[in-house]
Amino acid sequence: MRLEDLDTPALLVDLDRLERNIVRMQEAISAHGVALRPHTKTHKIPAIARWQVAAGAQGITVATVGEAEVMMAAGLADVFVAREIVGRHKLARLARLARQGPLSVAVDSVVGAEMLNAAMGEAGVQLEVLLEIDVGSQRCGVPPAEVVPLAEAVVKMPHLRLKGVFTHEGRAYGQGDPAAIERYARHEGEGVVEARDRLAAAGIEIEVVSVGSTPTAVGAAAVPGVTESRPGNYVFMDLKQVDNGVCTLDDCALTVLATVFSKPAPNRLSLDAGSKALSADTGAFGRPEEGFGLIKNTSYRLWKLNEEHGILVAEEPVPFGIGDRVEIIPNHACLVPALHEVAYGVRNGQVEVVWPIAGRGKF
Amino acid sequence: MRLEDLDTPALLVDLDRLERNIVRMQEAISAHGVALRPHTKTHKIPAIARWQVAAGAQGITVATVGEAEVMMAAGLADVFVAREIVGRHKLARLARLARQGPLSVAVDSVVGAEMLNAAMGEAGVQLEVLLEIDVGSQRCGVPPAEVVPLAEAVVKMPHLRLKGVFTHEGRAYGQGDPAAIERYARHEGEGVVEARDRLAAAGIEIEVVSVGSTPTAVGAAAVPGVTESRPGNYVFMDLKQVDNGVCTLDDCALTVLATVFSKPAPNRLSLDAGSKALSADTGAFGRPEEGFGLIKNTSYRLWKLNEEHGILVAEEPVPFGIGDRVEIIPNHACLVPALHEVAYGVRNGQVEVVWPIAGRGKF
Repeated sequence: MRLEDLDTPALLVDLDRLERNIVRMQEAISAHGVALRPHTKTHKIPAIARWQVAAGAQGITVATVGEAEVMMAAGLADVFVAREIVGRHKLARLARLARQGPLSVAVDSVVGAEMLNAAMGEAGVQLEVLLEIDVGSQRCGVPPAEVVPLAEAVVKMPHLRLKGVFTHEGRAYGQGDPAAIERYARHEGEGVVEARDRLAAAGIEIEVVSVGSTPTAVGAAAVPGVTESRPGNYVFMDLKQVDNGVCTLDDCALTVLATVFSKPAPNRLSLDAGSKALSADTGAFGRPEEGFGLIKNTSYRLWKLNEEHGILVAEEPVPFGIGDRVEIIPNHACLVPALHEVAYGVRNGQVEVVWPIAGRGKF
Repeated sequence: MRLEDLDTPALLVDLDRLERNIVRMQEAISAHGVALRPHTKTHKIPAIARWQVAAGAQGITVATVGEAEVMMAAGLADVFVAREIVGRHKLARLARLARQGPLSVAVDSVVGAEMLNAAMGEAGVQLEVLLEIDVGSQRCGVPPAEVVPLAEAVVKMPHLRLKGVFTHEGRAYGQGDPAAIERYARHEGEGVVEARDRLAAAGIEIEVVSVGSTPTAVGAAAVPGVTESRPGNYVFMDLKQVDNGVCTLDDCALTVLATVFSKPAPNRLSLDAGSKALSADTGAFGRPEEGFGLIKNTSYRLWKLNEEHGILVAEEPVPFGIGDRVEIIPNHACLVPALHEVAYGVRNGQVEVVWPIAGRGKF
């Protein structure tokens, strides 16, 4: 099957770029003696997770119990759920997974840990947990200075085993400046190592000291004491990573193939990929003025998205006509696979593989 | 099944509100002697489309060929695809549908009409078309003053039959002022009636003069000459419609049930519904400062969405704890069903029906 044989909108993955991105991150993280545990929420595709493991990843990360179920059902082992899980349905599902293979999950409060411990106790399993550390982004987690009381409570819970600490420095996004990202990366690594040191001083030893984001991955892995990195976006990259200086446009592996269906004026057109094919995400920090995706190999950014309209408005006439097909590089790749039934793996204009987005809508 | 039995995030539809919204719009449009052809892209659920037809709708509107396939396979008849369709795959699919039952599609250019005519000719079918009129929003379509040459070209094409004209006045969104919406509604109706009059003066008679959006539906239906209205959002309503003064919070029928999973400070928490369960849409005109959804029966708006985190930050301590469940009214309901596998129809705390989102990801 060739690219021309695909209906649009179609989710494309450039296989050469995907492989290069996987190998490059693996080598960069391995060079620091740090384990890579990629976040698979970005692609939600078990086959890509297996490529990451084949390249050297030590387990995978997921965002939801549903993603863990999909990945483990597909044979992926050693899964970390990087978010606190509560609620009797989710805890029962987590207990079932814990029986199937190595699984660990986030904890950031005594209340949450008690719920988790009770559910695992009922199910008769023990679960490994990592404490979430907040190094400043104020999303979830405890600051390094407050980790000891939480850890002391967790180690007393018989159905939990404290494996480590982890963090995510969301502030590295939107900096648009490699030096700033480097400072956040160091800060991320140092914050989570500080948490480990405080635990050690309190007599609590842990194995895993984990950081995680594509912009900070390499910089944080260089901090002595960090043992694991969990970037996700790097497999595909996107405009946000380009804007951050993390990669170039030639590294962007995920695009949406779209067709021009209306061109009411020489400088205005609509593509059949709108917010239901690209997501309405304006990037990590929401700047609509940056547009909603770039037409590959051009400088045209989509001006606006309606649900089924990707709208381009330019100052000058644009060189696309009705029926023409283009590829759109999204602002934020992590939101796009969840909108599609399948992804097409493409090399040299040929569709080599069709991947169902197995984790789509799995919470 | 009770609400408490649902795992989260879960897409809920308040059946009483849904029914009331369906009846209210039907009555308001019928009162003007105008046909209602609701846009089903909002819900993508055949069962809801059947309710709309049972209440008096004359056919339905869809945004994609995939939605038309889903709706027609479920027995819905007389479908209007309110967007220009090009590309050989889509045109072949359209021709197959045209053989199955009454179908019409948008046209806004001679080039597009020629492609459509050629494809229908190859398939040996005739297709009804409506010309898209641009009354000022500058998305797709021709201005009323330019409709005659397009119509003259279309009526010469043997495999197309010119049925009418239609428009969508997107500018009515984001006005936040009923008087302004009323002006846009009248402008919308008058623009499309002007197109009909120009065609009549050129000797071209049409049957359908169609307007379409929830804010303008009633006002535009009052314009003499309008024969059809195509609102979509009204079945669910949302914060954008409330902000526009189109409805009250008590009319919002669609919510996402979510669980608090992290509360690192008395004034900060995370819900398990982020941009992959609510969409990242900040509403029709993108004002992130308005937040990303309202917690039902409270005044709390979500401050930020990450993929699996709905983040609330308040000035004061918030009255929800880890494990608590809340319903979130989304900014823009039309984007939300496409993110979920099923919707739960709820009445008096009981789940009465589970609807697959059949049109999810169908382009």
